[in-house]
Parts: sequence; C-alpha cells; structure tokens
Amino acid sequence: CGLKKEKDDIALVYSEVPAVCALMSTTNKVKAAPVLWDKKVMKKTPIKQMVFINTGSANCCTGEAGYKDTEETAKFLSKLYGCPEDEILLCSTGVIGLPLEMDKLLSGIDKLKLSKSDETGLGAAAAIHTTDTKVKVAATEFKLGEKKVRIGAMVKGSGMIRPGMATMISVATSDVDIEADVLKKIFKDVTARTYNMVSVDGDMSTNDTAIVLANGEAGNVKITDAESPEAKIFKAHLLAVQTDLAKKMAADGEGATTLIETHVTGAKNEEEAKNFVRSINESSLVKTAVFGKDANWGRILCALGYAAGELDPTKTKLSIRSTEKLDLFDKGEILDYDDEEANKILEEDTVYIDVDLGLGEGEATGWGCDLSYDYVKINGEYRT
Amino acid sequence: CGLKKEKDDIALVYSEVPAVCALMSTTNKVKAAPVLWDKKVMKKTPIKQMVFINTGSANCCTGEAGYKDTEETAKFLSKLYGCPEDEILLCSTGVIGLPLEMDKLLSGIDKLKLSKSDETGLGAAAAIHTTDTKVKVAATEFKLGEKKVRIGAMVKGSGMIRPGMATMISVATSDVDIEADVLKKIFKDVTARTYNMVSVDGDMSTNDTAIVLANGEAGNVKITDAESPEAKIFKAHLLAVQTDLAKKMAADGEGATTLIETHVTGAKNEEEAKNFVRSINESSLVKTAVFGKDANWGRILCALGYAAGELDPTKTKLSIRSTEKLDLFDKGEILDYDDEEANKILEEDTVYIDVDLGLGEGEATGWGCDLSYDYVKINGEYRT
Repeated sequence: CGLKKEKDDIALVYSEVPAVCALMSTTNKVKAAPVLWDKKVMKKTPIKQMVFINTGSANCCTGEAGYKDTEETAKFLSKLYGCPEDEILLCSTGVIGLPLEMDKLLSGIDKLKLSKSDETGLGAAAAIHTTDTKVKVAATEFKLGEKKVRIGAMVKGSGMIRPGMATMISVATSDVDIEADVLKKIFKDVTARTYNMVSVDGDMSTNDTAIVLANGEAGNVKITDAESPEAKIFKAHLLAVQTDLAKKMAADGEGATTLIETHVTGAKNEEEAKNFVRSINESSLVKTAVFGKDANWGRILCALGYAAGELDPTKTKLSIRSTEKLDLFDKGEILDYDDEEANKILEEDTVYIDVDLGLGEGEATGWGCDLSYDYVKINGEYRT
Repeated sequence: CGLKKEKDDIALVYSEVPAVCALMSTTNKVKAAPVLWDKKVMKKTPIKQMVFINTGSANCCTGEAGYKDTEETAKFLSKLYGCPEDEILLCSTGVIGLPLEMDKLLSGIDKLKLSKSDETGLGAAAAIHTTDTKVKVAATEFKLGEKKVRIGAMVKGSGMIRPGMATMISVATSDVDIEADVLKKIFKDVTARTYNMVSVDGDMSTNDTAIVLANGEAGNVKITDAESPEAKIFKAHLLAVQTDLAKKMAADGEGATTLIETHVTGAKNEEEAKNFVRSINESSLVKTAVFGKDANWGRILCALGYAAGELDPTKTKLSIRSTEKLDLFDKGEILDYDDEEANKILEEDTVYIDVDLGLGEGEATGWGCDLSYDYVKINGEYRT
C-alpha cells in the first residue's frame, strides 16, 4: 500500500467462520496502539475472525492520534468484511514514533483479495517483514480421532528480539475445535518455551504479539480439557510448529550468520535454567566470539556468572557441539581439548552450547545468533 | 614481562608507608583467582601497601592451579619488598580460562623498579590495558585545614562493561589521613555513582576491582566521621576524580565513537532512575542509532519501557542535546522538531539523553557509548 517503498506491507489473515483465539503480547510498558486495541477486544471476547498486520510503522508513541488511527482501521475492516470490530485483531511493526499514513493504509486494505493459495500464504508471511531476510512459515497435519487437523503459522521478527516477548508478530491458525480457555492455557505454555526463549539483541519490542486462531472446521470432538490426550496431541504439534518458527527467527536475526542453541541442564529449577540460557544467548561477547569463530568459552562462563540463579563453577560442565561434541570445562578445571577443533565447531550453521550446572533438575533450551558487522549496519542505517 | 607480546603488561602501585584501603569487586558468581585472594586479605586487615596488576590473562576459570599461581605471586612480592602477604592486593585482566605463565610473570616482577615520576605513573596506567585505546588517569589537589591533600587514580576498562561493576580495574591513591571504616563508606557511595553507572556491552566481568589506598602522609587531622565537613570535602573530590574516569572509560568503550551521557529525572526513586539509565545505555538499538547518527528516539522509549520501574508514556518527556537541547517527545505525543537538527546532535563527540518521567524525585546519571563495526571486530578477533 506504499508504507514501505519496495515491498508488500500489509497482510490479512481471515477465517471463513469465527474462530476462538489466544493472544500473548509484549510486557514492555510502552505499548503500541494496536497492542492496546488487541488487549481491549480480547477482554470482550475470545472470538476473532481476522488479523490485520501492517509493516512500515509500529504505530507506537504516536499519542491519541495513533490510537484513533488503529480504531479507524478496525472500523474500516469491519464495514468492508461485515465482521464485528471486537472480532478483529490488529498488529503493526516498523519504526516507533512514526504516524501511520492512513490514506495509503485504507486504500491498500481496499485492494486486498482473500485467497487460499500457497502463493498468498507465503506472500502474507513476506508482507509483514521489516528487516527479516527469510520467509518464516511452518505447518503440520495430524489426526485427532478420525479427523485430520491442521496447524499453519507464520512469524516475523529479526531485531529488537528478547524474551518477554521477542519483537515479533506471529499468527498461527488451526482448524481444530477447541474451547477458548483450553487454547489459552496451551498457547501460554507453548509460547513460554518457544518465542520467549529467543534472544537476538536483548531489546524488548513495543509491538510483540503472538496469536493463534482455531476455527473448529476440522470437525473433531471438541477439546474441552487441557489434560485430555487430544489436548496433549494438539499441544505437541503446536509446540513443534512454534519451535520451528522460533529457531527460524533466531537464525534470521539481524546480521546473523550462525544459529546458537543453548541447552542448560542441572539448574536448581526451570526458571533459573531459563535465566542462564538467556544470559548466554544475550551476551555480546559470546555472540561476537561465535561470529569470529573463536571458541573463547570463558565468556560463556562469565555470562553464566552474572545471571540470576545458583551456580558453582566447581560443579559446572561446559561443552559445545555441532556434529561432534567437545567438552571444554568441567568441575572448575579447563579440560585438555584441541583449540582448532573447538573453533571448527563454530564454523557450522548451528552451534549448540551445552551447560550442566550439576545442581538440580532444572532444564531449558533457547535460541540466539551471533553478532556481526551487519547487525550494526542494519541498525545504524535502519530508518534511512 | 611477555604475557602480552607488544606492550607492557604488569604494574605495581606501592605506598612507601602502609595505607588504609577500601575495595569493591565484581558481583559475578564466577570470580577470578585474584578477586578471591583480595577478598581473603581484605577480611584480615584493611591495611595494604601494594597493588600488583597483570594483563594478558584474567586468571579466571583456571581451577586450583590458578589460585596457587595467585598465592605464589603474593609470596614472591612479599619476599621481594618485605611486605606482609596480607597487605598485598592482586588484580588480573585478560582472557578468561587462560593460565598465567608464571615464569614470565615472576621474572617480570623481578625487573620492576619503583619510581615516582609522571612517566612511570602513565606507564602503569597503560600497562594494565587490554583493548583500551587511551590512558585513563585523573588527579586533584585540595586543602583540608592547612594541609594539601592529593588524589590520583587510574582505570582500565573498555569491553565486558556493565554496572555491578564494569570490567575494570581502578586504583586510586591519596595521602589523606582517614579511618578505614570512613574510607569504605565513602568509596562505596562514590563507586555506586560512578563505575556502577557505566555500560558498554552489558557483560559483567569476572575480574572487576576498584581500589582506593590512603596512606595519611598529607598530615591532615585524621578523618574519623563520615558526616564531618572534611569527610564531605574529601568525598566530593574523590567523586570528581572517579566521575572523570568513569566517563573516560565509557568514551573509550570498545569501538566507541560517541560518549553517551543519560540523565533520568522524575523517577519514583533513585533505584528506578538508575534502572532506566542503564536500560537506555545498554540497548543495542539505541547504541547503533547513535553510531548511525540517526535520531530514532522511539528506541529510547522502547528501552525505557522494558526497564524495571514505574513509567507512564503520557507523563514522559524526552530530549537530546549536545550544545543545543532539542525536545522530541512529551506527554505521550511526538513534538514538532526538525529531523536533521536531531541527527546533527548525534554527530557530536558527546551526546546527552535527558528523560523526565514526571513521577517523582528519583534521579540518576550514567554513561555509555555507541555500538560500532569496531566493537564486533575487536571482540570477534580478541584472542587471535
């Protein structure tokens, strides 16, 4: 619609019938207008029929005028599609503090055409990009009883990425028949283990939103209990789809050349394990070492040391791996390993960092990426 | 002594008479061997006569052998200078997980010559550098009663810099006559407002140590009360010296081209004001925007929004300044300002970010720097 000069910039996800919806959004105290809108309409009803997304402006820090623009967008969509305003979710991503150009946006909405083709699906996933370089989608199909159930999802997010949540917009859709409360519970758990474990630069966005819509068209026996076998099957598949997207998001982090997957075991509890994972993945020094293919593992121990949680270096074990696993440090002592072999592991596309704290049963996995010249280039020149 | 190939790598600060000492060290749970040594000897006595510093290895994560190396260094110095071991402080900086080369170190100590010249003072300040590019020293002279009192200090620190404390070693010396407990109290307050408000990359070091020695040679009436006028005069001068060094450290942050001084007022309390200052100064997106000379101020508000503390965007005011001050955002609304004028402010060597939260009396100032290609270069290639 012209908000972005050289690419598609708006997308609409539409369910032919109203769907139940779960939504998680940013915990940043500075919230964009569409985040406030979504919170309002989610309070009114979990039923949603469409998600409209624009890139080019985050519509954040745009004052009362910005919120009115969001309301006007919802009204416009409501009239055009005959859908109640309360059943419309809105997401914006782009520069903070830049007002939406409403004439461009509304005339763009006017030109949108609904279609179920792969082409439009992938087109929507690309239209919501800012600095993303790769289309990030995932899908799965499985059986609940006799019925085939599908989940499809897309995500955007590349910079301003930090758990809680990442700077991202994600829309997942499913034809599963499920109660709103059960969907909410499952989605919260899945998001905590996927999007909330991705770190690119430690900046938490003002616009993060993850959405799942479930419209019941699969015709399965309605899931009404989060502990039922069917709920667990659905949850496992949703987790697989969202994990896939979380990893794709980290791998496509701004300027990234390497995906880092950090796995911490032996922490006192899960919460502390998560703190340790994030501390490693957010450390600029760990990230630059991976970029430099330099197995300077002291920086990993350093990042562990300033995370919130119990740690005893004399019980800590550290390994890195790609195809091969290499132990570097154990029980307070440097191990006898080959430096070149260690550096070689860092040349792979995905690097795994494994830490065993030797204290308890707490365990967590998270994803990050290296810090390259291109991160600086992208973010030093983002607006121009 | 050969720990570093192309520069001096050891320094000794020596007081002709035993001095009282205050020391603050890293809160990282992974602590280097010399940090553990210093903690041990500070517990025994506040009296210290020398501080020995090496660069080239942090002597951290080096296990029991690393701690024995530290003990051996202290014993060697003790014998050579006839100074009790408990009166010797040790600091190491450099690569984590790399054992000290003791033969080089001890033969280097053997060759050290004590001297009071400017040349050896500046030489010591340079000898403790890792990736620092500038010698960072400060000094002042003032009167207490009839007596002239002097404070001189040096600091090293450029990367792995985050409050709590920064990756730094700082040694301040004074000839003031002061009780150990009063010195400790003053030094703690001064450090909280200086070194603990510097952020370069958000990585907290394993080796941070800030030391002050006061040997009483000025002959002033001994300061025994932290609330006395003399104590306040001394504190003000120590604060000035350490603030000067804190700013020099941020300005010499790895790859830095711009010093950022952030001042937050109107916070609910001082602790929250500090959180907001640090969140801005540690944001990779704010730092790259300053590097790119792009007044993308939405990122500043975003960084405020994820800091711990009370914030209401409709009460928040944001300005940037160098020689001129420019208001950008006020009470939830974007102000009408000239974008080019804003970008121009970012071209100065020092950029001031002023935030008024409009909520209370909490106030804090802190220092950081931009994030440049050179930060990535320096840390991607640090060991090689």
